[in-house]
Amino acid sequence: MSKKLPNQETDFSSWYTQVVNKAGLADYGPVKGTMVIKPYGFQLWENIKSVFDKMIKKSGHVNAYFPLFIPKSFLAQEAEHVEGFAKECAIVTHTRLKSDPEKGVVIDPESKLDEEIVVRPTSETVIWAMYKKWIQSYRDLPILINQWANVVRWEMRTRLFLRTSEFLWQEGHTAHATYGEAEEEAMSILELYRELAEDYLGIPVITGIKTETEKFAGADKTYCIEAMMRDKRALQAGTSHNLGQNFAKAFDVKYQNKDNKDEYVWATSWGISTRLVGAVILTHGDNKGLRLPPKIAPIQVIIIPIFKNEQEAINVKQFIEPILSSLSQKGFRVQVDWTDSSPGFKFNEWEMKGVPLRIEVGPRDISQNNLVFVKRTEFGKQNVSADKAVNVIPGILDSIQNDLYKEALEFREKNTHKISSYKEFKKIIKEGGFVRCGWDGAKSTESKIKEETRATIRCIPFDENPKNSICIFSGDPAKHEVIFARAY
Amino acid sequence: MSKKLPNQETDFSSWYTQVVNKAGLADYGPVKGTMVIKPYGFQLWENIKSVFDKMIKKSGHVNAYFPLFIPKSFLAQEAEHVEGFAKECAIVTHTRLKSDPEKGVVIDPESKLDEEIVVRPTSETVIWAMYKKWIQSYRDLPILINQWANVVRWEMRTRLFLRTSEFLWQEGHTAHATYGEAEEEAMSILELYRELAEDYLGIPVITGIKTETEKFAGADKTYCIEAMMRDKRALQAGTSHNLGQNFAKAFDVKYQNKDNKDEYVWATSWGISTRLVGAVILTHGDNKGLRLPPKIAPIQVIIIPIFKNEQEAINVKQFIEPILSSLSQKGFRVQVDWTDSSPGFKFNEWEMKGVPLRIEVGPRDISQNNLVFVKRTEFGKQNVSADKAVNVIPGILDSIQNDLYKEALEFREKNTHKISSYKEFKKIIKEGGFVRCGWDGAKSTESKIKEETRATIRCIPFDENPKNSICIFSGDPAKHEVIFARAY
Repeated sequence: MSKKLPNQETDFSSWYTQVVNKAGLADYGPVKGTMVIKPYGFQLWENIKSVFDKMIKKSGHVNAYFPLFIPKSFLAQEAEHVEGFAKECAIVTHTRLKSDPEKGVVIDPESKLDEEIVVRPTSETVIWAMYKKWIQSYRDLPILINQWANVVRWEMRTRLFLRTSEFLWQEGHTAHATYGEAEEEAMSILELYRELAEDYLGIPVITGIKTETEKFAGADKTYCIEAMMRDKRALQAGTSHNLGQNFAKAFDVKYQNKDNKDEYVWATSWGISTRLVGAVILTHGDNKGLRLPPKIAPIQVIIIPIFKNEQEAINVKQFIEPILSSLSQKGFRVQVDWTDSSPGFKFNEWEMKGVPLRIEVGPRDISQNNLVFVKRTEFGKQNVSADKAVNVIPGILDSIQNDLYKEALEFREKNTHKISSYKEFKKIIKEGGFVRCGWDGAKSTESKIKEETRATIRCIPFDENPKNSICIFSGDPAKHEVIFARAY
Repeated sequence: MSKKLPNQETDFSSWYTQVVNKAGLADYGPVKGTMVIKPYGFQLWENIKSVFDKMIKKSGHVNAYFPLFIPKSFLAQEAEHVEGFAKECAIVTHTRLKSDPEKGVVIDPESKLDEEIVVRPTSETVIWAMYKKWIQSYRDLPILINQWANVVRWEMRTRLFLRTSEFLWQEGHTAHATYGEAEEEAMSILELYRELAEDYLGIPVITGIKTETEKFAGADKTYCIEAMMRDKRALQAGTSHNLGQNFAKAFDVKYQNKDNKDEYVWATSWGISTRLVGAVILTHGDNKGLRLPPKIAPIQVIIIPIFKNEQEAINVKQFIEPILSSLSQKGFRVQVDWTDSSPGFKFNEWEMKGVPLRIEVGPRDISQNNLVFVKRTEFGKQNVSADKAVNVIPGILDSIQNDLYKEALEFREKNTHKISSYKEFKKIIKEGGFVRCGWDGAKSTESKIKEETRATIRCIPFDENPKNSICIFSGDPAKHEVIFARAY
């Protein structure tokens, strides 16, 4: 297999498929639409997970685990919810296989279940069935529970990390005594999502609210963070829902307030998934491969020893030993590539894998007490005194982290267009980019634009200013200023 | 609900059910046999997981993720394997629901799958199908992959943590160039399991090998750690398998060795599960509730403030503030119970939850610059000078950790009987305990003993000494010295 990637500019879709493969991130599983997350891809997810897990624990949330299996009747309990998920779920009907002399192993028909079971597409229903048992009084509130789990939504057209039948995610499910508390929770989680995306993944995001058409099936309001990928398409990177009392009513979950009156409980739910790994690839990757933000990179520094014989190898080993152990002790993720490939091969390999900083060291560097630094985000090489290396590395990693964010932000700004002509709109959507414009608030407008251009309203940004603006489609006064784009 | 537990001595089974409930560890889910792990129970699992995850990463293993769904035909690939799991698996047959005017939400018959899908009972088959793609040469070996995941084995008679249709576990799956390497891997993982059980969970274990009857379906050899619970029954706490070339042959996974010859790959797999939470409860719990080993306890120190009015509460708060922050800074898990229940209620509550060390502090203690320490493992109270508290706590937690282990070890020793009469054997098995005795090595002996007494061979311990000993059942010369017991 060629080590070179297709050009991003001319064939972004193949570029994505191949970079996922060549960087060793993931693979398709044997059942259509399923994904195998390979160790390098999984470490990336583990690092993202670890950052967010600390954030939510710090803000008073706790983890728990709810079952994979949901009775079919539960899913049907909340009307919009079943509408949203019924068409894409895996259904368990039997619990036993048996040997058949002709056909090999077959389903044992006698093991048919009385009530079919749905593999969770999301856990609202099973969690609210439990909350009914756990919540009696205002003293039981708030409940601030999160779960890290796998969920299943049957997909026909799949892409690794972006759309697969099974994916990994976290789903927060909170219960509150008042509407205000639930709203505050949904918003404060959105702020954590923004922080995670921007400060750790280096992905600039627009925060806002979804339209009725685009909101979560069962929510009153869906807040989101939306990002622009390198092909100028949008990607929804996280959502936080104010569920109102919808699930409390569907599952009859009431609490006794301080005045001894029964009230329905208020709820939120919120999630981010392995999709974020896809977002990192699509935001930062270039024609040489991945470019990983140092804060979440599985390997932050890769050292490439350069040597022609065993003695030179020993010299390099001794030379880098104190640097290596000092960096490891300080908690940096460093590795030395001692495999027997050529240095040039290794440079390409680790560029493909997106390691932020490469250090080359050979006999000449040793004689000058130097190391050669190469940032994944820049072309040139830089000589650094071996004595200073450990001290300058944190700053260099920070600069790479910042550069990736800045580059992505500039890219998004450059490709976001404030316009008011529908002709121009169609041109931009076709060529790629975000359009920020007025919308009359009508569902029919939204659906006609989608039909004609495949663009959807990504969100109504919090900083909208619809005054004096008109709808891009109808020409009527705008109810909202919105972001339109084609999306993943 | 009464706060008191049934007596362990007279009704161990109800004691277990109620302690799981009253300590807030877990609950049954809506689908029969499924489990909800509540936050306190999940923190316990998270702590166990975190210890073991560090251990395996340190020894060169990496995490990855493989799909939940396995094609039915895969399971049938390895003969013993399908035999072992076919009778207890969840089978997905459809992928869509639809509305029916009469019956509500029903399965859409048009969404029937061509090939049914099995929800993984364990991942050997799907992983070896991937290894076939990933392994070509000796350079690709070893593969040292672990996965943290949920698995499903349909169960009719369930008990929380011990036997549920879905449970959480880790499953390691390694691939090696030689039999020797695979054997070394299986044994070194068993040693990590022993270390985890004894040094962290405080559970003494017997290490050994399973008989042919009791080994994993598809393994050449199954090694295990076996523990004695407080009702003198055995619990298998972890298993490590040398799979030989069974799965490599079933999935045709060969590698080219250094002499350019194709050979089948050698394999291991190994797992521990949320069952370990059950083992902790059953090993250490007493009539007041859980007793948790400090190294894995979600809360290591609970502080109970004692006050009669607001001023006293403020005084206590100020008094404990420096102790609290110093302990937290040092990484100890400490909490103060400021809820409005009475101190006596709180004592019972935290005893039920098994917190290793309780600290009481009220106005009198403040006036004497003292704190009152109460170990969960002892009766008496102990006055400790507030100035010394932070320094003595680590030692106290260590002593609790050691005491729990020692107590469990003494209990096991006391209830392990080296005997040679079958009459005595039956009496001990009925009353409870381990029997260490000779076995003639015959499967028929094993099955007859099981039939008559419900005791199984838990393992052939590594330190067996069968010389000059005779089979407890047949009277023939013993082939092995084994451990018999009734088991969970």
